[in-house]
Amino acid sequence: MHIPTLIEHKRDGGVLTSEEIHYVITAYTRGDMPDYQMSALAMAIFFRDMTTEETAALTEAMLHSGTMLLWNDHDPLRVDKHSTGGIGDKTSLILAPLLACDNLWVPMISGRGLGITGGTLDKLESIPGFRTQLNEVEIHQVIDRIGCVMVGQTAGICPADKKLYALRDVTGTVPSVPLITASIMSKKLAEGLNRLVLDVKWGSGAFMKTQEEAHRLADSLVTVGEAMGVRSSVRLSEMNEPTGESAGNALEVAECVRCLQGQGPQDLEDIVLDLASAVSISTRSDLATKLHSGEAWRKFQQMVEAQGGNVSVLEKMATVHRAPFIGELKATASGRLMRMDAGGIGQAVLELGAGRSKAADAIDYAVGCDQIAKTGTEVQTGDVLLRVHARTKGALFRTLDFLPEYIDIV
Amino acid sequence: MHIPTLIEHKRDGGVLTSEEIHYVITAYTRGDMPDYQMSALAMAIFFRDMTTEETAALTEAMLHSGTMLLWNDHDPLRVDKHSTGGIGDKTSLILAPLLACDNLWVPMISGRGLGITGGTLDKLESIPGFRTQLNEVEIHQVIDRIGCVMVGQTAGICPADKKLYALRDVTGTVPSVPLITASIMSKKLAEGLNRLVLDVKWGSGAFMKTQEEAHRLADSLVTVGEAMGVRSSVRLSEMNEPTGESAGNALEVAECVRCLQGQGPQDLEDIVLDLASAVSISTRSDLATKLHSGEAWRKFQQMVEAQGGNVSVLEKMATVHRAPFIGELKATASGRLMRMDAGGIGQAVLELGAGRSKAADAIDYAVGCDQIAKTGTEVQTGDVLLRVHARTKGALFRTLDFLPEYIDIV
Repeated sequence: MHIPTLIEHKRDGGVLTSEEIHYVITAYTRGDMPDYQMSALAMAIFFRDMTTEETAALTEAMLHSGTMLLWNDHDPLRVDKHSTGGIGDKTSLILAPLLACDNLWVPMISGRGLGITGGTLDKLESIPGFRTQLNEVEIHQVIDRIGCVMVGQTAGICPADKKLYALRDVTGTVPSVPLITASIMSKKLAEGLNRLVLDVKWGSGAFMKTQEEAHRLADSLVTVGEAMGVRSSVRLSEMNEPTGESAGNALEVAECVRCLQGQGPQDLEDIVLDLASAVSISTRSDLATKLHSGEAWRKFQQMVEAQGGNVSVLEKMATVHRAPFIGELKATASGRLMRMDAGGIGQAVLELGAGRSKAADAIDYAVGCDQIAKTGTEVQTGDVLLRVHARTKGALFRTLDFLPEYIDIV
Repeated sequence: MHIPTLIEHKRDGGVLTSEEIHYVITAYTRGDMPDYQMSALAMAIFFRDMTTEETAALTEAMLHSGTMLLWNDHDPLRVDKHSTGGIGDKTSLILAPLLACDNLWVPMISGRGLGITGGTLDKLESIPGFRTQLNEVEIHQVIDRIGCVMVGQTAGICPADKKLYALRDVTGTVPSVPLITASIMSKKLAEGLNRLVLDVKWGSGAFMKTQEEAHRLADSLVTVGEAMGVRSSVRLSEMNEPTGESAGNALEVAECVRCLQGQGPQDLEDIVLDLASAVSISTRSDLATKLHSGEAWRKFQQMVEAQGGNVSVLEKMATVHRAPFIGELKATASGRLMRMDAGGIGQAVLELGAGRSKAADAIDYAVGCDQIAKTGTEVQTGDVLLRVHARTKGALFRTLDFLPEYIDIV
């Protein structure tokens, strides 16, 4: 096969065969196909899209570019969720231990944050000592003992995706449904799952801006998951205000601890229970019981300990990472809170230093926002709408100046 | 400026500023912008096209990536033509000396053949000793003495084009009007021209398959030429049968020698005179006189000698490069020759070894077709329709078997 001819075929609207797609991904992983051909092909795919069959073949080829987690027939069902990301989206930290309490195995491979949305690994690494880079033997050991593990992509899993993702990031080829699908699903399928729930969001605080885009991606993800033998379902939701009450790494871990202790917030708990019941055998109310009884909280502590984290500080994360400057944003009018824009808060939190503008940026675990008021509540002049945790006084005031245009009280 | 943001802007249908385009080309030429970003941008340009202003800025940026030929105010007018290429298109070899006879300077920088269309440099190099790689000092010396020179791109001229052209060739990004325009025009403008005529062809034996595509490219070339201060005109023509009577390197040089000696063929002479009169101050009939009088033929011999070629063999090129196997394709019916398909003959000549499938291929100067009958003529059963010059008996018979489906007698 001749790579330039395959690029031209896709460019001109043609459909690549499964053999052609496997040839491309194998050649690319081995270094036989240079980056400059892959980026041209990725751009052609951006414009011409891929059929369901092509997307499934691409996913499979990327999955088979490396190793996958292998399980025994008598092992418990493996389940997981994937979220397309949103501001304050911290559900994984609660969901994984909750499902493990249900005698399911959750071998969760997560990513880091880039742009306005945070990353599960970054949040976990704000816990002193927590190791997210386990090898495959260690992953199996933690799962065997605890039932859940939360780690980064290992060296062996989906090397094609690692290489292609880094390339797409610098060549304007990220927002392509088939490429996103193959990237997400190859990694999730490498976990050796039986069931997967996809949390696909749209809105100002999400990667997808419109409901239509979110629907397209959700359909593509579920179709590929089902085609590859994983029972897949989707929860589509709008992300126009942050999930829960905080955004920022240590602040979100602190919120997860409160939620695992049965202290809400309600919207976060609702999303967790929705997602959990989609892949669980138990009912939603059984799962709620496991959350409220503290069972999931004990499981979370076991997982943190098994991955080297300091369990004793979990209830005082805000003290472990204490931002030097904390300020309150107060309501300047009374009325109903109609808008607490997730995109605006995401931008503010990114600029405070909680996220990355580019992959090599360092993360400040302490900074972010908490006590974020929920839309629909009645507020009085002077009520706290949110608190800002900043590294410098300048950053604090910039954020307090920046945010009001993203908040409406009517 | 952030290259990925510029790629995304073009991908989403935006217009790049002149500063952005210069930044990109400078970064790419220096090696600061990697090939994988340039190929993604080129593919986005393929899909999104460029405005006239963007195309002109790209051309200018590529021109200024290197040196250009510099002339004095009192030097004769510099003129040239560029052809988009076609089967048997050998006009340059006659045109350059003819225009030099008209007290014009023709500093012609040409290319090599790739695919079914041949290259001027390859044809010239079939002349024993002929040097096409002159440096800029040598180019000026030959022009000063003779008035015309036919050379390849020097190391200093348009390095951005050299790099980008090689990249486009292997990334499916060749057929883009703005990229083709910038590639052609940056090299032609580097000659320091006053006037340029563009020979744009469409049809089975041309790069552009439809008249509409040819019109678009012609408009783009002329607009950019005029914008950059070069009086530019275009000759649009259909290429469905070969130009003249031969296709193949030494065979075409032999035909040019006959044409320079005033022995036609008519269609070749007509194209040469059309193109010459577009950039000359003289009338078409004055130019025809210079061709028929042998003045252009003497000028051609002077140029060959100045560039190291063996003038004494010019009248016996078919003997210098004699293919071991020569066979005739004869008419199997009587009637009017309605089709002598240029694309089919181009493919046959390429497969005989006269052209390159890929840039590194070697050329066989001896092989090709000659005595190609012109459409519209009446033929009798047994008349010779063309002769095939082949390196092996197998190649000869394959070609004689292959060609009849491209020839119609009605």
